[in-house]
Formats: sequence, structure tokens, C-alpha cells
Amino acid sequence: MHESDPTVVQIIDQRRLPHEFVIEDVRTAAEMAIAIRDMHVRGAGLIGAAAGFGMYLAALETAKSRNPSSSLENAAQALLATRPTAVNLALALEQQRKAMADADSAGERIRLALETARAIADDDAECCRKIGIHGLELIRRMAKEKKGKPVQILTHCNAGWLAFVDYGSATAPIYAARESAIPVHVWVDETRPRSQGSKLTAWELGQEEVPHTIVADNAAGHLMQSGLVDLVLVGSDRTTFTGDVANKVGTYLKALAARDNNVPFYVALPSSSFDWTLRDGRKIPIEERGGEEVKYAEAWQNGEVVRIALAPETSRAVNYAFDVTPRHFVTGLITERGICRPNESDILSLFPERSQP
Amino acid sequence: MHESDPTVVQIIDQRRLPHEFVIEDVRTAAEMAIAIRDMHVRGAGLIGAAAGFGMYLAALETAKSRNPSSSLENAAQALLATRPTAVNLALALEQQRKAMADADSAGERIRLALETARAIADDDAECCRKIGIHGLELIRRMAKEKKGKPVQILTHCNAGWLAFVDYGSATAPIYAARESAIPVHVWVDETRPRSQGSKLTAWELGQEEVPHTIVADNAAGHLMQSGLVDLVLVGSDRTTFTGDVANKVGTYLKALAARDNNVPFYVALPSSSFDWTLRDGRKIPIEERGGEEVKYAEAWQNGEVVRIALAPETSRAVNYAFDVTPRHFVTGLITERGICRPNESDILSLFPERSQP
Repeated sequence: MHESDPTVVQIIDQRRLPHEFVIEDVRTAAEMAIAIRDMHVRGAGLIGAAAGFGMYLAALETAKSRNPSSSLENAAQALLATRPTAVNLALALEQQRKAMADADSAGERIRLALETARAIADDDAECCRKIGIHGLELIRRMAKEKKGKPVQILTHCNAGWLAFVDYGSATAPIYAARESAIPVHVWVDETRPRSQGSKLTAWELGQEEVPHTIVADNAAGHLMQSGLVDLVLVGSDRTTFTGDVANKVGTYLKALAARDNNVPFYVALPSSSFDWTLRDGRKIPIEERGGEEVKYAEAWQNGEVVRIALAPETSRAVNYAFDVTPRHFVTGLITERGICRPNESDILSLFPERSQP
Repeated sequence: MHESDPTVVQIIDQRRLPHEFVIEDVRTAAEMAIAIRDMHVRGAGLIGAAAGFGMYLAALETAKSRNPSSSLENAAQALLATRPTAVNLALALEQQRKAMADADSAGERIRLALETARAIADDDAECCRKIGIHGLELIRRMAKEKKGKPVQILTHCNAGWLAFVDYGSATAPIYAARESAIPVHVWVDETRPRSQGSKLTAWELGQEEVPHTIVADNAAGHLMQSGLVDLVLVGSDRTTFTGDVANKVGTYLKALAARDNNVPFYVALPSSSFDWTLRDGRKIPIEERGGEEVKYAEAWQNGEVVRIALAPETSRAVNYAFDVTPRHFVTGLITERGICRPNESDILSLFPERSQP
């Protein structure tokens, strides 16, 4: 939030990284919906937090509305429609709905919305911090086997502090290892078409002084065949309570390569990324974005967005943003309550309050 | 070769496609080595043909040399050093060495070198034409099962007529299907970092009016999980006589996804891409190119090369150009003599002259 103006929410416009670090002022729920849809902000946890603050802005806007509940519902629907795959978005909107339901005045609604938005963000940061602690133990065990050589970790897309409120999910254990002076080296998948690996993860790791090397998405198999990867560590946009993992498109291919080469494949996620209603990962809606993200490459340079065509104008492109890694390719899930295996019973053992009575 | 000047070899500078179609004049063996190394020309078959013509240019250059055999050997070594993975290069140089060995004059050497270069190119085109005939039968069988719906073929990189002298290897069956009015649709992997899929294959298929759609390399798994791929069809830069396939990096990941989703995975190759000396694919040398190909995206626009940074300047990148798909993930090999399974005995049944006595 803006330091001196509580009607303005501030976000990092991630589209301009790594070339420029730009803070954007968001003043309405509609602006927040655009920021989420057009990926000024992205990443499972951050989408949830942004939606929470979007509903706070909506509460502010409804202060003088004659039908505030209808206006709030419209804002929630607009925010929900932006990105279909990450479940954190729906969860944050639900939390805000419940929080504001009992408000008996506009002022009270605004106060509750702000409180809830902050709680969502704080909870996200706290979960990621704990994921770091649990994941650190995993890396520590691997480091012992490597006898001083760096633990080689491959990651896909950005599940770092840019994707969450702080720490990140997949990066939290990496940052924790770095703080504990355990040597690590991170293979950063470029992550086409939007290059969140090259543009965001590499930048983040550079800021935190974590040794890393960018590779094309195509290279993960060869790296694993060559014995250069000890651990694959990715985030998740939605994980079923049975352990199927939706994450950035291409994650499934890395999971297949990890299995074929006996490399452990771990998914780090706060419990806000679990879908407690879905048993079959194949039913997770997969966002389809515009084909132009594939046909063009984009970067922010010398104060303007440069976009170059990589393909003939007349060729069609499609752009599925996520894929689903079936549970049997996942070694373990790293959550804020500990590490578990990707199956219903182990997941519900960690989160017993989610068990059906 | 140039129409009116037999001392000039002409190539398509593929770096400028799809934005510009530029013919480049190559006048010396050293220039040809640069054209191969910097990928003005690329693709297993075309590299072989280019090396053949490179040796013809070397023969021309040695006309007044006092030690022609040493000059020719230097030229061959320089050409050989350009790209380590594709075996066609070494084969073409060996054919030229043998052809010129018996020449008793400079004129005779030049005549033999030109004859051999042409034979290598003609043989490549003829092999690809036959690969088209054999692969067509495969597609025809699949088309019957699809009952009028297009056969969905996924390909990686460019194994089209731009990669060979004509027809291409992986594309030859596709073009043959198109000519036979069998409906096909091709999923074109972008193929980062050099985007040969988007830039070359999509352009080629567009020229031939084959319906196609470009996807990010990461998308192949999701496409196959969604039942949208009937056949994976790729080329090869080197295949062991036991059936292990080196091809553009990322091929192995598609093969893993094909296996997990029961999609047939075929490799089309002329026998010039077999390595008859290597039993174990893990011993195929994998070319490592400059990391800047990963950190930047490049395209030719408005008459100049535009290069944009996709990553922080300070981040390191590595760029393995190929990977090896172990034989047990390959359904079949499509060669100029027919289709066989990827094992020593089936391959040698098709090429009995290669059997050790």
C-alpha cells in the first residue's frame, strides 16, 4: 500500500523486469483486475494477495454506492475471471466475501477488507517462510551427500518472492540454504513464452547472490541425463488434495525427465494452493493465453517495450499457460506444515481439518 | 552453385528467415566453414552437402598450391570443427577425401570434387524423397483411423527442406501426405533458443500450405495429455547403429511425453545420419554453443537484426544444442530403405552392407 495514501495499492510491474524496477499505483478494483490479467503481477500467492487488495479497493469504491453488495460481487467476478488456473485467487475472494458479509457500515466494510487483505498477504509470507524451513532440511541432507559440492537444483518459471508476498515457494528453501551457507547452484529454465525464468527468477537469484545458470526449456532432459541435477524444485498454481500438480506449462516435461533419471521432483506450495474440492488433476482448468506471446518475444529496453517477431505473421500459435503433472511423478510436496507424499491420505494427515467428517 | 560463375556456391542465409529470403555467395572453404558454424546453413543433410561443396571450393583454391593435399586437409579439418554432433559433416568430408585421392592434376581434383559434392547433394535429396514415400504409408494408416479428421503431427526444430537439399527428412512424409490429399495438421515446437521451429519450419509449412500451429517447447506434454497429437515426427543429427537418436535439444523431452501418453514417436533420417561406429548414444558429442543465444532473442526486422535481452546481463547461460533420446523411447526409424525398429538387428537388416563380417 502507498505510504501516505491509503486509497492506493502499490505493486511491482513485473513486465519490466529485469530491465527496470517500476512501482505501479493501483487505484481501483478494475485496475487491479487488469494488472492480474495482463500479468503486471503474477504467481500463485501474489495473485491471491493482489485479489485481496483488489477487494479492498472495491470496498473503498462502494462507500457511496446504493447497492454495495452487488458492486462488490461484480468486482469479485471481474477479479475471478482474470486467471482461471491458480486457486489462490478464488480463495482470497472467498475470504473477503466472508469477512465483509457482517459489516454494518461502509467504514466497517473498508476496515474489514483492509484487515483481510493484509492477513492474506501476511499468511502467504508466513507460509513461504515455513516452506523455506522444511525445504532447507531436504537440501541439507542432499548437501551432506555432495560433500561440499553445490547441490544442483533445477527450477521452472518463477516461484520466487516475485510470485508471492515474500520468500517465494520454490525459492524459499534455496534462500534458506544460502543463509545457512549450504552451497547451491540453480538451473533456471528460461520458461517460454513469457520468460519468467530468465526475466524474473534469474534476476531474483542475482539480487540474492545465489549462483545460477539460465538454460533453454529444452535443456532440462540433457542436464539430468548428464547427472547435473540433484533436485527439481517448482511451485504450483493449483494442487488437488490427491496430489496432482498444475504449474507453469512445461513442468510436466521436467517431471518426466526427473523420473527417467531418478532425480527427486519436489513441489513447494502454501496450503492456499491446494484445491480441496478436486480429486482429478485433469479437471483443473488450463488457462489459454494469446498466441502472440509465442510468436513474439518482448523485452523492455531503453525506456520502451521492444517486441520482435519470431515467426511468420501468417502462422497461427496457441498458448496453454499451464500443464498438470500427475501425482505419480511427484516425489513430495513441501508445505508450511512439512513435507508429505503426493496422495490424499498423506496430504490430509498434514491438514486434518480438511478431512470430510 | 551460381548460374554463371562456377567458382561461387550459393546458399540461403537461413538466419534471416522468415523475414527475408537472402541468397549468399560463398567463395572459399573458409567462408563455408563460417556459414556452417554460424548457422547460415544448418540441418543434418544440408550441413553434409555444404561441407561437400566446401571441399569443392577448397579444391579450386588449391589449384595453384604447392602442397595441395596439405591445404585440402586443413580445409577439411576447419569444416569438421564447425559442428561436432551431426555425422553427415564427417561423412561428406570422408567422401571428398576418397574421391580426390586419386586425382593426378588440379583440374582432375576440381572435377572430382564437384562431381562428389553434387552426388552428396543428389543422394540427400533422393533419400529424403524415399523417406517421404515410406513415411506416407504410416500417415495414411493413421488417417484411416482418424476417419477424415486431420492427422495431428508434432515436430521439433526444422528437419524440413531447409535442413536438407530437398523434401527434408521429418517433413518429407508430411509433404507427401499433403500431395496425396491426406489431411494433416502440424504442431510446430518453437525450438528455443534459435527458434528454428517458429522461424523455419512454420515458414516452410506456410510456403507449402500445410496447416500448422506454433507452440512453445513447454507445451508438447499438455498437447499430448489432451489427446491432440497422433504422431511425433522428428529428424536426427546422428543416430547410432543401435538406435539411439541425437537430435535438437528438447527432442528427448518430447519422446518422454510421447511414451507417457502412448503417442508413436518416429525419427526420419537418411542413412547418412547413422553413425556406424557408435554403439552407445551417450558417447555422441553434444555441441555446446554460446550462452548468448539463450539470453537474447534475435529477429531480422526492417532491414536489420534486432536483438533483445531476455535475461539480466549478469546471469550466466549455457546452451547445449542437442540431446540424445535413448532407443527405447523411439517407436521407429524412417529411412530411405523403409521403416525399422530402433535396434541393431533391425537397422542392420535394412543396411546389411554395414554388418561386420
